Amino acid sequence: MLKIGIIGAGRIGRVHAESITRFVKDAEVKAIADPFITEESAAWARRQGIAEVYSDYKRILEDKEIDIVLICSSTDTHSSISLEAIAHGKHIFCEKPIDHDVEKIKEVIDALKDTDLKYQVGFNRRFDHNFMAAQAAVSSGKIGELNILKITSRDPAPPPVSYIKVSGGMFLDMTIHDFDMVRFISGDEVEEVYAVGGVLVDKEIGKAGDIDTAIITLKLKGGALAVIDNSRRAAYGYDQRVEAFGSLGQVAIANDTDSTAVISNAEGVVSEKPQHFFLERYMQAYVNEVTEFITAVANDTPVKVDVYDGLKPVLIGLAAKLSIEKNRPIKISEITKKYNL
Amino acid sequence: MLKIGIIGAGRIGRVHAESITRFVKDAEVKAIADPFITEESAAWARRQGIAEVYSDYKRILEDKEIDIVLICSSTDTHSSISLEAIAHGKHIFCEKPIDHDVEKIKEVIDALKDTDLKYQVGFNRRFDHNFMAAQAAVSSGKIGELNILKITSRDPAPPPVSYIKVSGGMFLDMTIHDFDMVRFISGDEVEEVYAVGGVLVDKEIGKAGDIDTAIITLKLKGGALAVIDNSRRAAYGYDQRVEAFGSLGQVAIANDTDSTAVISNAEGVVSEKPQHFFLERYMQAYVNEVTEFITAVANDTPVKVDVYDGLKPVLIGLAAKLSIEKNRPIKISEITKKYNL
Amino acid sequence: MLKIGIIGAGRIGRVHAESITRFVKDAEVKAIADPFITEESAAWARRQGIAEVYSDYKRILEDKEIDIVLICSSTDTHSSISLEAIAHGKHIFCEKPIDHDVEKIKEVIDALKDTDLKYQVGFNRRFDHNFMAAQAAVSSGKIGELNILKITSRDPAPPPVSYIKVSGGMFLDMTIHDFDMVRFISGDEVEEVYAVGGVLVDKEIGKAGDIDTAIITLKLKGGALAVIDNSRRAAYGYDQRVEAFGSLGQVAIANDTDSTAVISNAEGVVSEKPQHFFLERYMQAYVNEVTEFITAVANDTPVKVDVYDGLKPVLIGLAAKLSIEKNRPIKISEITKKYNL
Amino acid sequence: MLKIGIIGAGRIGRVHAESITRFVKDAEVKAIADPFITEESAAWARRQGIAEVYSDYKRILEDKEIDIVLICSSTDTHSSISLEAIAHGKHIFCEKPIDHDVEKIKEVIDALKDTDLKYQVGFNRRFDHNFMAAQAAVSSGKIGELNILKITSRDPAPPPVSYIKVSGGMFLDMTIHDFDMVRFISGDEVEEVYAVGGVLVDKEIGKAGDIDTAIITLKLKGGALAVIDNSRRAAYGYDQRVEAFGSLGQVAIANDTDSTAVISNAEGVVSEKPQHFFLERYMQAYVNEVTEFITAVANDTPVKVDVYDGLKPVLIGLAAKLSIEKNRPIKISEITKKYNL
Repeated sequence: MLKIGIIGAGRIGRVHAESITRFVKDAEVKAIADPFITEESAAWARRQGIAEVYSDYKRILEDKEIDIVLICSSTDTHSSISLEAIAHGKHIFCEKPIDHDVEKIKEVIDALKDTDLKYQVGFNRRFDHNFMAAQAAVSSGKIGELNILKITSRDPAPPPVSYIKVSGGMFLDMTIHDFDMVRFISGDEVEEVYAVGGVLVDKEIGKAGDIDTAIITLKLKGGALAVIDNSRRAAYGYDQRVEAFGSLGQVAIANDTDSTAVISNAEGVVSEKPQHFFLERYMQAYVNEVTEFITAVANDTPVKVDVYDGLKPVLIGLAAKLSIEKNRPIKISEITKKYNL
Repeated sequence: MLKIGIIGAGRIGRVHAESITRFVKDAEVKAIADPFITEESAAWARRQGIAEVYSDYKRILEDKEIDIVLICSSTDTHSSISLEAIAHGKHIFCEKPIDHDVEKIKEVIDALKDTDLKYQVGFNRRFDHNFMAAQAAVSSGKIGELNILKITSRDPAPPPVSYIKVSGGMFLDMTIHDFDMVRFISGDEVEEVYAVGGVLVDKEIGKAGDIDTAIITLKLKGGALAVIDNSRRAAYGYDQRVEAFGSLGQVAIANDTDSTAVISNAEGVVSEKPQHFFLERYMQAYVNEVTEFITAVANDTPVKVDVYDGLKPVLIGLAAKLSIEKNRPIKISEITKKYNL
Repeated sequence: MLKIGIIGAGRIGRVHAESITRFVKDAEVKAIADPFITEESAAWARRQGIAEVYSDYKRILEDKEIDIVLICSSTDTHSSISLEAIAHGKHIFCEKPIDHDVEKIKEVIDALKDTDLKYQVGFNRRFDHNFMAAQAAVSSGKIGELNILKITSRDPAPPPVSYIKVSGGMFLDMTIHDFDMVRFISGDEVEEVYAVGGVLVDKEIGKAGDIDTAIITLKLKGGALAVIDNSRRAAYGYDQRVEAFGSLGQVAIANDTDSTAVISNAEGVVSEKPQHFFLERYMQAYVNEVTEFITAVANDTPVKVDVYDGLKPVLIGLAAKLSIEKNRPIKISEITKKYNL
Repeated sequence: MLKIGIIGAGRIGRVHAESITRFVKDAEVKAIADPFITEESAAWARRQGIAEVYSDYKRILEDKEIDIVLICSSTDTHSSISLEAIAHGKHIFCEKPIDHDVEKIKEVIDALKDTDLKYQVGFNRRFDHNFMAAQAAVSSGKIGELNILKITSRDPAPPPVSYIKVSGGMFLDMTIHDFDMVRFISGDEVEEVYAVGGVLVDKEIGKAGDIDTAIITLKLKGGALAVIDNSRRAAYGYDQRVEAFGSLGQVAIANDTDSTAVISNAEGVVSEKPQHFFLERYMQAYVNEVTEFITAVANDTPVKVDVYDGLKPVLIGLAAKLSIEKNRPIKISEITKKYNL
């Protein structure tokens, strides 16, 4: 029975705790830590059968019984807690991104060297039924050689401007998932990035120094082309689609809906909007990613999203940011060179 | 904390046990009974944290701590175990059908009189997201007055002929769910039934005295018309669709698929087949029905599918059987008269 | 160059005239006749290059240059004009139905005997791209042996009650097309019919002695089952769909729309309603049927919908009417026996 | 009765001639000219009732009875024949593009000045039901302010390399339609272009100095972003789709198919491939564009695609070519400056 400690009792920390309680047979959440633990969240923890609730996450790291740590705290703490947890010999599941700062990710990579610790990054979409179906179609050769990969990724509504200010910018906060999907579905690496962006949703986002709408074109090493389009606000909900086009055809994935009901009336033929947002849309993916991580620890098999998979989308995101700044295509090698990678 | 005993450790008994363990907060499965309990199923029960595993279901009925009994044994035992469980003051969730014999259902109805016991029948489709969406569209008036209700219900493959012989016939075994859906979605009662059927899938089914393909036309009390088409074998999988057509429009529900992936190639534009069969398709509905039943017990609120909802589809099924026999429409009143209902 | 005379300058007569003018190379409309010819329709005829406009259709029959007559007059005149046209040695394209009275159809059949005249009935759906695709899938074996054939056929709005009174009833006026489609798609003959109907759209229709909503179940000679559902009013427009289900799978055809545009907004995902009514939906089929008829005359090849194809749906319609009257299934042989067929 | 001369009796010249014969009431094709007129095409012309068949197009220009000239000859002759036809006072419908050389288009623009001649360019997609539906949704405000416009445009198979060599390159030959669609649907002008491209379909195309796969990102003056993806070969056929995403939602148009038939079998749920190529897909659009042009001449109303609409996509195409060459975004003003526009 593997023992798990969760650092961060926010939305995603709780999702993971409940997933483990419900779906993971041979592991249990022993402790959860959050600096702002409330009576409500303590009661929630008791209902889940979590024995310990701490305000200081170090109590989890010091607990020798705990094998695995899930880092679900705020992004700015991911890398430092990762380092501490590695020092305490814990296997780590870390929410994305490891950090916005490449140097800090490098420290985590260095710290993991010469250990047997598993380190998985929370790119949940790799565990989603639709994205997996797209990836399977590509990797199995069903569409032949990949030529064009298109990703549409739009949120139903922008986060508060206060969040945007500390988010690292749309490319590191939101598009980072899409960069990961480019790598996952293509099975290839990005070579060059060109991004255009605008503030079309909310001027306050622009004042905070960010954009809310973008199209990012990517050249892949194998020669395929990719394009991502992003918006912080789709009036009809969370829009998450992919088309992978190749020499033998195309695979496309569409949104999920709450039901298949279609109402035909004098106004038209109306089907349901996409599921509201990431928690609804990716709930099963959150379950899957943690389940598979714990299985990888239990069986000592490789994790599906390792620390390098955590690094690379950050590099692409930095290239995209620079591309907007300079209004020119940026080679990933410009970024890696800068960081001696 | 409500304590639950499950009678029958087959496929559906296990589904319910796991649902409660995973999703129901204030209840626990204390015991499970099955005459043919294997070491494998005992191990499964231990992993679920089920304290007691019996071969004799009477041990469950005699356990005073147990509040709720789930009857998941073979159909021929449903009514007699129901009677015993009522005598022991247990709340009961009984898999469908209560019995093929109306007299036995009447005994259960009589036994429930003057008790406060909850009795829910396992018509799981009432708890499925698609069927609920269809029902909601109709009951909320979105399609106006219901005129025509169409149900397509086809299995991916017929059961073994040995099962068919004891199944009560296709109408009581398979169509019974569709009869329930006619009542659920229309919010109306069936007045008259006409059925045509054939043996188009497997001649062995015909030799066993049953049919494998049917179209059943129903007149509803409120004037609407309904039609069900059934097949024991759809080459493309489990086909479960509804169209409800009314004065203001139509609501239609389609099948669920494992993913939204669509592959376009030189052969055509190919999307996924429906999910394989009832366990895949209705897993969440099984969770929902038991969860809601336990909630109804906990809060002393009415159950969503009561003993009369268990009786009426049997009456319709008997009318459909008689219709095939006589090749004429049969009024439900012919059946109820026969049973003094 | 074949010369054509059109009897009846109403909506469908004009459609055929324009089709020939536009699409048929080696034929021309020489004359059109209508007892109520208006200045507007005379001007329309001139624009089409139609040389003669008569009030008396006999002028067309007497014109020795005219090879082909299209009978587009009111239904009650179809059979008598057919007989006259046969006597004058004209090839005939006759709008459906030949007559509501079987005896009169028999007279036409008798008159055609020992002639070489082509006689085609206007069952236009046989020439529609969707219905042809369904038929092709069935006849080519793509769905294996046909088990269940389902036809949905709903009008956007009922005709005036004055029309309904002379229409022969819904089964002979509207469902007759669906009966033809059962024969066309199945490649089989109907053996027995059971119909249920109601007045759910407009009570005035009921007062006129007709129904406006129906479900008709049909047993086919080969063992397959069929079902048609009809309504005189679908709020969302003209609903014309088919599902043919067989041992190897299913072919389904959906409605056509004016465009593929889908609008997603806060209300839902909205696609277009079906095309409005038969003129919009079947315009190309009207072109095709007349084009193919003229080709059959020109090349002396068999027509695609002959006089027997005109008779048989009438027999099924009469069986359906009788079924409603008697509330029991009616064998087609009961009808044919009555008429010595 | 307007008289029309058609220059070029190739595929598209014939399509226009047949459209006019069939669908345009108050105009007739008097003459057709082609340097390589064959006996087969002369026979075709006779069947259409075209009085004159010339090898020298100047005969058409010199015919004073002819009001309108349709220029359907090879691209390299469009601008010079345009100039001659203007000099002869003919209204002109010119296939796209007017020329690949901006100077030559300027000459046509200059020649049209101070005349009352109509000049329409053959951007047929503006007259297609799906693209019109997308444009209508955007211009009517149904999606709010346009944020992102996405166009997918893929051919079923590349043209011969011999054609590619004289085609002006993919951007001027194929993408030019998509550039026109960006302007048409957005109602806005392009400000800057960035293109990436590759040779992923056929190396011979690369050897001929062209690309066969591309993604083009465009910044529009109003702030919206657009992206086009192109391939010279889609295994599943002609792929022509648009998504216009705005502040209130999205409109998307899909491909047309030959029928709505969907076949479900053990392999999956299979619907039809897109219609094969431009002639099948845009036949009605070809009819519409010529019909509307003739109407504009007859009524002296503005044409829907004027000579400036012919110029601007060429400028965007030249910017895209330069972008590939320089691997940097190109402002349209760089191109217009070069040509003193």
